[in-house]
Amino acid sequence: MANFGGHAIPGVFFLLFGFWTTIKTILHHYWRTHQQKGKPLMPPAFKKMEYFEGGFAVFASFSGIMVEQFVVDGPHAHLYDTVNSSWVKQMNWQHSTMYMFYGIYGIAQVACTVSSLVPIGVNKLTLSLAFFVEGFLFYFHVHGRTLLDAHCHSLLLVSVFSAAAGSMLEVFIRNNIIVKLFNACMFILQGSWFFQIGLVLYPLSGPKWDETLHSNAMFITMCFCWHLAMAMLLVTSTCCMVWFIMRRFSGRRRDIEIGMRDTSNKNGSQKALLEESDEE
Amino acid sequence: MANFGGHAIPGVFFLLFGFWTTIKTILHHYWRTHQQKGKPLMPPAFKKMEYFEGGFAVFASFSGIMVEQFVVDGPHAHLYDTVNSSWVKQMNWQHSTMYMFYGIYGIAQVACTVSSLVPIGVNKLTLSLAFFVEGFLFYFHVHGRTLLDAHCHSLLLVSVFSAAAGSMLEVFIRNNIIVKLFNACMFILQGSWFFQIGLVLYPLSGPKWDETLHSNAMFITMCFCWHLAMAMLLVTSTCCMVWFIMRRFSGRRRDIEIGMRDTSNKNGSQKALLEESDEE
Amino acid sequence: MANFGGHAIPGVFFLLFGFWTTIKTILHHYWRTHQQKGKPLMPPAFKKMEYFEGGFAVFASFSGIMVEQFVVDGPHAHLYDTVNSSWVKQMNWQHSTMYMFYGIYGIAQVACTVSSLVPIGVNKLTLSLAFFVEGFLFYFHVHGRTLLDAHCHSLLLVSVFSAAAGSMLEVFIRNNIIVKLFNACMFILQGSWFFQIGLVLYPLSGPKWDETLHSNAMFITMCFCWHLAMAMLLVTSTCCMVWFIMRRFSGRRRDIEIGMRDTSNKNGSQKALLEESDEE
Amino acid sequence: MANFGGHAIPGVFFLLFGFWTTIKTILHHYWRTHQQKGKPLMPPAFKKMEYFEGGFAVFASFSGIMVEQFVVDGPHAHLYDTVNSSWVKQMNWQHSTMYMFYGIYGIAQVACTVSSLVPIGVNKLTLSLAFFVEGFLFYFHVHGRTLLDAHCHSLLLVSVFSAAAGSMLEVFIRNNIIVKLFNACMFILQGSWFFQIGLVLYPLSGPKWDETLHSNAMFITMCFCWHLAMAMLLVTSTCCMVWFIMRRFSGRRRDIEIGMRDTSNKNGSQKALLEESDEE
Repeated sequence: MANFGGHAIPGVFFLLFGFWTTIKTILHHYWRTHQQKGKPLMPPAFKKMEYFEGGFAVFASFSGIMVEQFVVDGPHAHLYDTVNSSWVKQMNWQHSTMYMFYGIYGIAQVACTVSSLVPIGVNKLTLSLAFFVEGFLFYFHVHGRTLLDAHCHSLLLVSVFSAAAGSMLEVFIRNNIIVKLFNACMFILQGSWFFQIGLVLYPLSGPKWDETLHSNAMFITMCFCWHLAMAMLLVTSTCCMVWFIMRRFSGRRRDIEIGMRDTSNKNGSQKALLEESDEE
Repeated sequence: MANFGGHAIPGVFFLLFGFWTTIKTILHHYWRTHQQKGKPLMPPAFKKMEYFEGGFAVFASFSGIMVEQFVVDGPHAHLYDTVNSSWVKQMNWQHSTMYMFYGIYGIAQVACTVSSLVPIGVNKLTLSLAFFVEGFLFYFHVHGRTLLDAHCHSLLLVSVFSAAAGSMLEVFIRNNIIVKLFNACMFILQGSWFFQIGLVLYPLSGPKWDETLHSNAMFITMCFCWHLAMAMLLVTSTCCMVWFIMRRFSGRRRDIEIGMRDTSNKNGSQKALLEESDEE
Repeated sequence: MANFGGHAIPGVFFLLFGFWTTIKTILHHYWRTHQQKGKPLMPPAFKKMEYFEGGFAVFASFSGIMVEQFVVDGPHAHLYDTVNSSWVKQMNWQHSTMYMFYGIYGIAQVACTVSSLVPIGVNKLTLSLAFFVEGFLFYFHVHGRTLLDAHCHSLLLVSVFSAAAGSMLEVFIRNNIIVKLFNACMFILQGSWFFQIGLVLYPLSGPKWDETLHSNAMFITMCFCWHLAMAMLLVTSTCCMVWFIMRRFSGRRRDIEIGMRDTSNKNGSQKALLEESDEE
Repeated sequence: MANFGGHAIPGVFFLLFGFWTTIKTILHHYWRTHQQKGKPLMPPAFKKMEYFEGGFAVFASFSGIMVEQFVVDGPHAHLYDTVNSSWVKQMNWQHSTMYMFYGIYGIAQVACTVSSLVPIGVNKLTLSLAFFVEGFLFYFHVHGRTLLDAHCHSLLLVSVFSAAAGSMLEVFIRNNIIVKLFNACMFILQGSWFFQIGLVLYPLSGPKWDETLHSNAMFITMCFCWHLAMAMLLVTSTCCMVWFIMRRFSGRRRDIEIGMRDTSNKNGSQKALLEESDEE
């Protein structure tokens, strides 16, 4: 799908996934640091979130594959054209393959949540493999493109492989909030960079970019760093917002419930936070 | 052995090794999570499996070396031809070298099982080195090949070096089921990819592939991802099968032995699983 | 800022940062090993040091950006020149981007010190990203330079990416004195190497270097190793100096306070040191 | 020193260092697993071994620098020849730099042993840096050599960087016998490979090798794997020899001392070994 839409749609998905991961991480963190001695069980809402995430991944990847295959100029599930002795629409097949691995991630995510027999961490491993496959296919994707096109896609690989490495790390280091937020940051970076690629290669308005100019490639490199800074800002502000909403919301509820234990609780939560960070 | 058979034979071995590793891992895991307080000793069957694995590796690598050396057009243990001032059949010597390292792995595996003086983990280190040597020799193997041939072998390196890294990780992180299954997945991927290489370079039927066509190389890249997905599916389904067979088999035995403790045991096993994954 | 000053200024900052990190590390270490049972709280001076470091980073990066933008031949905050259809002063924009990330580090450092809600380690992550961005931009910076210029900047990348990796390691392995001193060493190496680059490309006196001669590039490679040795020497001697000053200073104070407990305390401190190193 | 001797001398040193490390590791291991409850202190012989190692490294590196500088055709401490405007004997200066870093290792080794104030692990860090610098200089050393010469030195880099990585690992994972023996193996591999390089480039007898022939490079690649196998064999057999000598020697002494506690002790040692390996 070599047009602006074909880059904007995955961009939206990765942006949403990044924000979703940030919110989930902060909710988990809030719950862990504010949890009361009497109720050590995880609230069922968290499990529902995991199911939703997995289900959505399966649904989105299935739709993605269908669209790639049965769009008007798609391969319609034909792989090899024996008449012309050539492969049919390799680009669409490659995108379908990428989507399939995100679908596998969705299945693993649901399986991990449903059954305690599935080892915890399998979902992160499949997510890491999904990113790896995406990066792997993109790496061999850029052959024979113009300088700017190839450079844009190479920069994308930086965020894709960082996300793959970060997710792999989560298999071994679970519940480390910094790793989780770093990954969220990489998802957002990837999403916003997809938009940027779309805007550079298929500008909505104005003249086309000169794809062979070295100074354009240099600007794009710098622009990638700005996207990184913006992704860090977005993750940070989302974290703050969620945290303060949770505090206000649960503070009020607790006020009604238990009156004036607030101050001691707040101190407790801070200490818990400190201890948690230390023990990692 | 530049023919289909020469790629199919190692393929079969790696496929078998992958399935064997999966089954062993799940049996170990089942035993660990279902083990009763009264019998903390590992059943002797596990030790026998380790001996068998090591012995088989030594036997297979010895046979492999013999075949490579004394096949009709082999080097017959001659390294340098002083008459023509040239090396004799370097390909066969390289394959012999690869086999030798798998033989060393077999010896280390047996030694680790026999004597408690051999540090645990040495077998995984030698396995990792065997994969490393295989990848190392393949890496310098592809010089001067056609585009498709070189690309197929480069993709093989991805699975070989992943297996080497995964086995090295097992030296330090023992008993992590995800690492073990990931390795099994890489062994199966390598095995099935050997078959694929054989089929692409020496097709059993139909026309030969055009080894210089870029679109063929692109298809092969995508195909590698499909093999990865299939390897993941095979490992998962093998795990499920072994797990349910074990459950049915041991459930019935225990029913006879101890009557109706079944429900509490099942809960216990799930909790044990959770704890185990957490402590990693 | 393609002149000697443009390389000397960042050089000074990195040198100072290296010495500052060394001194901070040793003070922390001294305090931890000499801390008395009765006062387990960190002295407020450490918090002030963290604030100072963060504030200084923000201030320096802000000044840096302003200077790069509003210097006489700077871009004056113009990014694209629509008249000539070209980017304005990309070099200055790139340097501003690098400074911005050090500013982000400063903000994270202050935030980490102010609030216990910010996970410990975020400051090190942002520092690591700042180094990564610096290396990333430098990597694409060297296109089309002379052999010697490109080689000097490539060697700089070795120290930049080592510092990025070392800082990332600190996110996970906190309070390991060797990691901290290694990072300090890399900061000093980077600082002194900036000076060296300035001296090689824009010599203060004498003839210009022949930037295309291979033997010059070889000498520069060796020279980088000498800088590394010197950085190690500087870190070591700073450590010794700080340690002995602290010992003399605190020894005298304690003498007055508690008389003759000195010998037993010293042994205690050595044992504490040993234990600490062992538990890492 | 472009002759056979110039490669054989470092070869001998690395071989000796490899064997020394193996023996030291096994002695430590034997002592740790056989140590009696009553005497938890490390025997003074171990400290003396560390002093000897450090002192020898300092002495050898000092001699090496002196020889490189003041050999008949050496640079005699002149760096730049102002008459011809050229660098003097860069090769000798590079070798001197390498030796200097091994000297720094020696100093760190002695300092670590003398004073408990020096953090444990600093010696391994300096050893890692020494290998890194060696590899770093060799990497830029091979420019403009013949195919075979460059390839031989590239293969050397594999063992050098493996030794650097292994030593770096020892900073964080101390007392892991597998890491220590792996490093010893890499030292021996490096030593024997130096001999091989000497034999290939400056053969003692027979015709010179054709340094541009691809099949020679292929043979050398395979030969490197054989050296690796031999290094593994040498480390293993040294371990076994030292272990059995220690057992016989200390068994007899203990027999005289405490009579017939032998059997129970042996079991204990095996259990200790198992536990140790498990806790890693």
